[in-house]
Amino acid sequence: MNSMPQHDVGSPASQARLARGLEVLARIDGDAGRAVLDALADVSPALGHHIAAFAFGDIYDRPGLDPRSRQLVTLGALTALGGCEAQLKVHVGAALNVGLSVEEITEAILHASVYCGFPRALNAMFVARDVFAARGVTPVASPA
Amino acid sequence: MNSMPQHDVGSPASQARLARGLEVLARIDGDAGRAVLDALADVSPALGHHIAAFAFGDIYDRPGLDPRSRQLVTLGALTALGGCEAQLKVHVGAALNVGLSVEEITEAILHASVYCGFPRALNAMFVARDVFAARGVTPVASPA
Amino acid sequence: MNSMPQHDVGSPASQARLARGLEVLARIDGDAGRAVLDALADVSPALGHHIAAFAFGDIYDRPGLDPRSRQLVTLGALTALGGCEAQLKVHVGAALNVGLSVEEITEAILHASVYCGFPRALNAMFVARDVFAARGVTPVASPA
Amino acid sequence: MNSMPQHDVGSPASQARLARGLEVLARIDGDAGRAVLDALADVSPALGHHIAAFAFGDIYDRPGLDPRSRQLVTLGALTALGGCEAQLKVHVGAALNVGLSVEEITEAILHASVYCGFPRALNAMFVARDVFAARGVTPVASPA
Amino acid sequence: MNSMPQHDVGSPASQARLARGLEVLARIDGDAGRAVLDALADVSPALGHHIAAFAFGDIYDRPGLDPRSRQLVTLGALTALGGCEAQLKVHVGAALNVGLSVEEITEAILHASVYCGFPRALNAMFVARDVFAARGVTPVASPA
Amino acid sequence: MNSMPQHDVGSPASQARLARGLEVLARIDGDAGRAVLDALADVSPALGHHIAAFAFGDIYDRPGLDPRSRQLVTLGALTALGGCEAQLKVHVGAALNVGLSVEEITEAILHASVYCGFPRALNAMFVARDVFAARGVTPVASPA
Repeated sequence: MNSMPQHDVGSPASQARLARGLEVLARIDGDAGRAVLDALADVSPALGHHIAAFAFGDIYDRPGLDPRSRQLVTLGALTALGGCEAQLKVHVGAALNVGLSVEEITEAILHASVYCGFPRALNAMFVARDVFAARGVTPVASPA
Repeated sequence: MNSMPQHDVGSPASQARLARGLEVLARIDGDAGRAVLDALADVSPALGHHIAAFAFGDIYDRPGLDPRSRQLVTLGALTALGGCEAQLKVHVGAALNVGLSVEEITEAILHASVYCGFPRALNAMFVARDVFAARGVTPVASPA
Repeated sequence: MNSMPQHDVGSPASQARLARGLEVLARIDGDAGRAVLDALADVSPALGHHIAAFAFGDIYDRPGLDPRSRQLVTLGALTALGGCEAQLKVHVGAALNVGLSVEEITEAILHASVYCGFPRALNAMFVARDVFAARGVTPVASPA
Repeated sequence: MNSMPQHDVGSPASQARLARGLEVLARIDGDAGRAVLDALADVSPALGHHIAAFAFGDIYDRPGLDPRSRQLVTLGALTALGGCEAQLKVHVGAALNVGLSVEEITEAILHASVYCGFPRALNAMFVARDVFAARGVTPVASPA
Repeated sequence: MNSMPQHDVGSPASQARLARGLEVLARIDGDAGRAVLDALADVSPALGHHIAAFAFGDIYDRPGLDPRSRQLVTLGALTALGGCEAQLKVHVGAALNVGLSVEEITEAILHASVYCGFPRALNAMFVARDVFAARGVTPVASPA
Repeated sequence: MNSMPQHDVGSPASQARLARGLEVLARIDGDAGRAVLDALADVSPALGHHIAAFAFGDIYDRPGLDPRSRQLVTLGALTALGGCEAQLKVHVGAALNVGLSVEEITEAILHASVYCGFPRALNAMFVARDVFAARGVTPVASPA
């Protein structure tokens, strides 16, 4: 649009944050996260930049909470928000990537039902089911 | 996972609550409710257990409010929550099952628009339209 | 602001709708509804006009659903939305006005917890408790 | 249902409000808005009437805020609500119709992410992308 | 109301679930959880019963997820829901009780801001601040 | 906590973004924004840092949308979210600061009611009333 680098996305410092964020994104979300950014390229690369640079480069990589714990918070938040099935899909995959077990993920969603009700928990659980199937991981048959 | 019955789903008392819940579920939701539980079997039978045992066996079957009134509360809550189209589909069917008329259901959704805005009411009304079509019931042509 | 009547609030037809709405509002909500409109007088009388004319004059007075049923939908919607404690206060009072019993109101809120989770149900139940106390009506001691 | 005109939809005054609303709806939303009303004809023409008469005839046509500003409020509200993708589709189109640029629309959604989080902003941005593609308008390649 | 025990709250089996739930509640939430149940005694003891018996006795005590992880899910869900400040107050205290550090709690809320936006994160963070102050625990001064 | 600067808040680049953000924050929100950051100092200075650096330094200062338009999006989003009265208070003040008139602000909230329902619009309008009173600005008496 213009040849001047825009302050929030075009400066060397913001590019360094972006690079860090893309590295974290690849480590946590794998290809699924990258695919979201690519899908934004034609409509709002700036949104993709800030998701990578801020959400992953800045926040996710802070030392005060381990990745496993961050994914538990994320599962709780996305299940409760509702209407975020596409993002839940990415983050159920990410939860597996950082070492949460299939059972822990389904327990987290069941636990969230207490706070946000059964409909949102059902929607989240069916997303989890689809991710597990796509990844070829199976919930251990639990009693009941 | 282990051979000990798990307290919340495997004990005789919890199985009795489940049996009661499944009976209520069948009476209110018909096959649609059962289909949801079956879909959970591979990912979280515990979520299915608690929806049946707690939501239907415990709460729905309490004497203080008749089924027709419960479905009106449910329609108001699900319309307002948003993003619960799959659950609304089951509960619009349930509303018909417990004796609400097509007109009462559409009025309930129209009434909810005052509190939650038109977009959520539109989403709910289109779910109702699809359920009515699948059941072969037709709204009486109302003036306007 | 100008001497021309504004189309949505100043025309004779809109004044007739307003008059109808104020009459319904008084019948259903009593003084509590009127107090909300009065509080809007200094900031947005137009919002008050449309709440009276549209929500009460148009929608609430439609014949397809009785007032008792409308309040059940309202309780479900407001409990699920959250953050609407001031409006719930008015509508718990309205629920009593149209003939719902204290027990039916508490059951409606308990029923909604299945769909929207316990925190929102707790918030609504404490609003109901305060309205019951202010009105001097007491829940019958229920078993448990 | 009966031959008496119903007060909120069948009276001459309400028909005049409807006519005004349909005119505004056509001007702002074009065919997309009309298609929503048509889809309601078989299930709840009353909901369609009130969306046209109240939302467009009464509110949208008030003089205190220009159409461009109204669409910015609408984009903020629909993005934040979540689960309103069908309505966002209509209103991204409406935003173009009233003169907002592709860049302003994507900036509005990016701006909303600060208040409602990235998942809802992502959902809205992908709706915008699809509307832009269907309309053959292209975001100017922005830096980043 | 009647002398028959009501199925969901008065049966021996439900009383056993309640006893288990009250024990878990006391362990996790301490006095704060019990105070909520006591406040319900005059309006809906049944809601209190089911929060204890179902949410704590059934769900919280399931073996598949440790208490620390459950509180992370809870913090994510309650922060994202919004309007649940009273419940967040109890659960920030519970998070401390199960061993989450002050820093982990504030990181969890900061992390949630990515998904639910800054306003809800601000509301949650100020609740956490008040709980920390009441408990006499101080966030370690973190860089920035 | 440690003497190493933390990547997201302690690096020279992040401090430059913070400085920019604080300047934008002061210009838009005045003292009210700064007071929020100060209130975070004892519990999560990192949340305050990112609100300033990301929300104001990065996003708000992007060239693609003027401040007046950004505040309209913000009013729509915060009204629709609900439970954000504290943030609305700051942003109604900010809306006045960037040149929106009292009438435009009340119209924006009235407009949002179509999408999010009357209860959330009422809550927002009462916040606006309080801000107007505190600033000594008065809505022009509008017809109705």
